[in-house]
Formats: sequence, structure tokens, C-alpha cells
Amino acid sequence: MDNQELMSFFREASSGVDRAMRADLASVESSLLGEVLFYGIFNGGKRIRPQLTLICAALVAGDRGSNRQGILDLAIVFEYLHAASLLHDDVIDHAEQRRGKKTANSIWGISPVILAGDYLLSRAMSLACAVGGGEAMALVGRATEAMVEAEFLQARTAEEKNYSEKNYYKIVAGKTGALIAAACEAGVYIAAGSQEQRAAIKLYGENLGLAFQIVDDILDYQGDPVRTGKAVGNDLVEGKMTLPLIHALRSAGSEDLAVLEEVLAADAGEKKDRFPEVKTLIDKYDGFGSARREAGELVATGLTGLHCFGEGRELQILRGLAAYVLSRDK
Amino acid sequence: MDNQELMSFFREASSGVDRAMRADLASVESSLLGEVLFYGIFNGGKRIRPQLTLICAALVAGDRGSNRQGILDLAIVFEYLHAASLLHDDVIDHAEQRRGKKTANSIWGISPVILAGDYLLSRAMSLACAVGGGEAMALVGRATEAMVEAEFLQARTAEEKNYSEKNYYKIVAGKTGALIAAACEAGVYIAAGSQEQRAAIKLYGENLGLAFQIVDDILDYQGDPVRTGKAVGNDLVEGKMTLPLIHALRSAGSEDLAVLEEVLAADAGEKKDRFPEVKTLIDKYDGFGSARREAGELVATGLTGLHCFGEGRELQILRGLAAYVLSRDK
Repeated sequence: MDNQELMSFFREASSGVDRAMRADLASVESSLLGEVLFYGIFNGGKRIRPQLTLICAALVAGDRGSNRQGILDLAIVFEYLHAASLLHDDVIDHAEQRRGKKTANSIWGISPVILAGDYLLSRAMSLACAVGGGEAMALVGRATEAMVEAEFLQARTAEEKNYSEKNYYKIVAGKTGALIAAACEAGVYIAAGSQEQRAAIKLYGENLGLAFQIVDDILDYQGDPVRTGKAVGNDLVEGKMTLPLIHALRSAGSEDLAVLEEVLAADAGEKKDRFPEVKTLIDKYDGFGSARREAGELVATGLTGLHCFGEGRELQILRGLAAYVLSRDK
Repeated sequence: MDNQELMSFFREASSGVDRAMRADLASVESSLLGEVLFYGIFNGGKRIRPQLTLICAALVAGDRGSNRQGILDLAIVFEYLHAASLLHDDVIDHAEQRRGKKTANSIWGISPVILAGDYLLSRAMSLACAVGGGEAMALVGRATEAMVEAEFLQARTAEEKNYSEKNYYKIVAGKTGALIAAACEAGVYIAAGSQEQRAAIKLYGENLGLAFQIVDDILDYQGDPVRTGKAVGNDLVEGKMTLPLIHALRSAGSEDLAVLEEVLAADAGEKKDRFPEVKTLIDKYDGFGSARREAGELVATGLTGLHCFGEGRELQILRGLAAYVLSRDK
């Protein structure tokens, strides 16, 4: 399945997810709360996480599943958690823009946005427990807690200027891998997949998430703002140690290393000014190429266990998604 | 059971709750996250909510309950939710002090505190689902969502200068009553109480919560800062319409009404300056007395259904707590 087919599949399937979320949120009483929730959720996202839940459930049970509404409710849990984390992240980062649009906090201030995030967290977890019981809830809870722990680790890493690749992977696994893996595993779980299938899909989801984030980190240096909808250089300015830079620091000659370390120790304004210089140095030491290769290896590892599912359209979609994650430019 | 006996009972029982929370949070990896969580949780609170869960479970099952650890885990859910809401509220209100101590956000800034609140929400809900299944989780989810909705309603009420008593009760029911009622009902539920018992304890919890908040609102005018640990007049300055003021507005003669409305329309600084004037006017129209009587009636209503539980020590504690809530001065 090529990228174009895949994207058109996702576009069509996402309307079911959107309908389910609208129905679920119809009971919200406060009009302002509803407005903030809708703004945070219906933001043009691709609904990758809930769709993974749906695909992974179909991977096990095909279209035979008798529990369609339950599976859909479990799927939207992962979009709610994703949206909640974006809402709170933007408050935390004082972000004004996300993907070319004003952030909710820049429109309404922090109070309604923190509360809307709390509401989504609660709603997500209520749904997970109601539909999937204790096991689905445990998946969701662990992913949420991993996301929080990863934020703390990321802040400490930036403060300590910790360049270790191990640390980077730990952060990315928590921030991105955990939720994507949980979305996949929840789908297999709700469709009564085997333990082997759960382990296989978890590995796929974790590695897909890592690869997704590595490519995101590459795009933060090399992306075309017109395509990605965001400016380059944010990670450097915020002191985030991402894989291309970590690779360059490891390989750089002493003179270049000194330059990189000087920029990393500088204030945000200087970091921004010297972004092109850093980008050139990363490129000189093949930081982007080697990061991209690592992403490719991760995805390949993630695919290894999937033979325990029968060949079919869903498996093609998962493979197509893995290829898309590596090749995307936005 | 008089107030002194009651408080000494609560002091002793709270150490079990504290131990359970410490054990549960031992797996937190980030030291800063752990620090913020502990600061937010171990803040000298009386642990009323988790103790209500424990007492209500014992009310049904006595000490015979075989699921002691489960009941304790369910109890701490309600302290986590309470602590999470205080952490996020202080961020939202830019509060510098709580009960004479620095707030977490004034020590660490908003990022770690928002994240710590999210962590506690997630942990609370994971525990609720694991221990109490879908029904306990539904109690917890509804209470959390009610708290959020009430915050939105409160903000709108302040903005619209809505003086209605109905609105006031709706806000208080969401902000305070819902969680206390859920803590009570969860205890009866986990001990396999009947539907009649669940309804009776829910009514008790809701009304206890309302009365608790009404007395809190009275203390915000009449309290002794040395006893309560907080300054008077905050509600007026923040534009919060509380019961004593609502009662006074309803009864005031046209001249006094004009004065009250003038102050309510003024800025925060003027509100603060004219606090003594407002307090005198509320008193003139028996706003404090009538609010206190309403709190008394609510508590009496809350006690009416409790005859479906056998007479015993737990019932005495619930009655004692109801009396304490009315008579407390801090």
C-alpha cells in the first residue's frame, strides 16, 4: 500500500472516529468547555492513534467483531489522551502556535485549557475502563504515566546537557512510543488476540512511535516549513537533545565539537541565530543520515513479529504506515 | 462522638492512608516528579475523603472485609483526585500560598505541577478501575468531570454576576459535593452494599460536601486567619458569589443593595478595601446566620437515609463528622 492509498484510507476511516467523539462529547454542559474541547480535538490531526486501535482490532478479528461500538469507544480513548497531552504541553511551553493555528491557551488563557485537558484525561480513562476493563485501563494508565515521566526526564536532560543516546530513547519511548504502542495493543486486546500477538503489536507500536519521533526530530532541522506547518530549529532553541545532534556530537572532531558545545551553552537567542551553523555541522557528521537509518532499523524490528497475524489488508496497512513514517516530509 | 474524639480518630486512621500512598508512589522514577507529588499530597490535610471511603466500607462490612488492601487502594484514589485538583487549581489561580505554605507552582513553576496533577489523575483512575472495576471508575469519572464543569460554571457566573442560589448550589455540588459523595459511595460499593445503601450514602456525601463548602464560604468572611491559616475576603475579591452574599443580596433594602452591587462591580483592589463594609451588610441581613441554617438543614437531610445501616461506631463517626462540619472554625 503506497503513501497516497494509505492517506486516503486514513482520511476516510477518520470520519468514523470523529463521529464517535462528537457523540461522546455531546453531554458536555458548559459551552466554553465544549468549545475548548472541540478546538483541541478537531484540529486537523490524522487520528493515527485511534485508527491503529481499529486496525489492530481488525487484524485479529477481521470485520467479524461483534463489539463495533466498544472498539470505536476504545479507539477514541487514544485520541483524547493525545489531545489532552497537546493541550497541557502547549500551556507548559507557553506555545502560541501549533501547526499554523493559534493554540487554545493563546485564545482562552491557561485556565480553561488545563481544565479541558483534565476533562479529556478523565473521559478517556472512564471509557477505557468501561469498554476494556482493568487490562485496557492498565495499558492507558501506564502510557499516561510514561508520558509524564518522560517530560520530567526531558526537562532534566536539557538542564544537565545530557547527550546520551540512551536517555534520548528513554524520553522518546515515553513521550511518543508508549501511547502509540498502547493504542495498538488495546486493539489486539479488545479483539481477544493472543499474548504472542499482543507482544508483537506492542513491539510494532513502540518502534513505530520511536521512528515517528526520530523523523519528527529530523524535520525540526530539515523540514520545509511550508510542508510541515512549523518553523525549524525549535528543538535546538529549547535545548532539546535529539538524535541527529547526539550523533553529530559523538562523531565531531574536537574543533567542531567545541563549536557545538558553545552553541548548546548559549542562550535561546544565540541558539536561534546559529541554527544554520549547527545544521551544517550535523550534516557534516552524517547526523541526519545516521538518524534516518536508525529509524529504518527500528521500523524493521517492529515488523518482525507481525507474521503471527494472518496476511490481509490490515497487515498491509501496518506495513504501509511503517514505510510512510520513514518517508514523510510533513 | 464529639469533635475532639472524632479528630483523634481521623488522625490515627490517616496514617494508614498515608502509608498506602507512599507505597503506591514508590515506583515513581523521576525524583522531581516524586518531590512535587509528595509536596502536593503530604500537605497536612485531614484525609477526609479517603477516610470516608474506609468508614463507609466498614459501615457495610464491619471489620470483616476480606479485601482490606483493595479498600485502602480505592480510598487513596479520592485523596489523589483531591490533591490533583488542588495542584491544578493553584496553577489556574496563580496562587502563591495554600494554608500558610508556598504552593507547589510558586516553588517549581507551572510545568512540573500541571504534569504532577496529570500523573495523579491517571494513577487515581488506574487504581479505581483495577480495584473497583467499571462501577467504581464511573463514580470517579463522573466526579472528576463534575469538578471541571463546575469550574467553568463558576467562571461564567463570576463574569455574568449571576446571583442565583440555584447556580451557587450547582457549582458547590460539582466542586465539593461530587467528590465527597463519590468517596462515600465507593466505600459502600466496594463492600457490596445494597442499592438503597448506596443511594443513602450518596445523599449523605453530597449534603456533607455542600455544608462543608457553605461553612468554608462563611469562614472566608468570618474566619480567624490564625485558626484557618488563610486570609479573609478572597471570595469577594475574586468575584465569587457565595451563599452569605447571595442571601444578603436577596434581602437587602434598595440602598444597601445599591452599595453591594457597586462593590461587586468594582475592581479587585476596591473590593478588598470595602470588604469590611460588605461583611457588615451581609451580617445586617443575616446572610451568615441564614447560610449556616441552610448548612444545618442540608446535613440533617443527609442523615435521614442512614437508618438502613446498622447502628455502630461507623454511623457515630458519620454523625460526628456532620456535626463537626457545621461547627468547625478552621
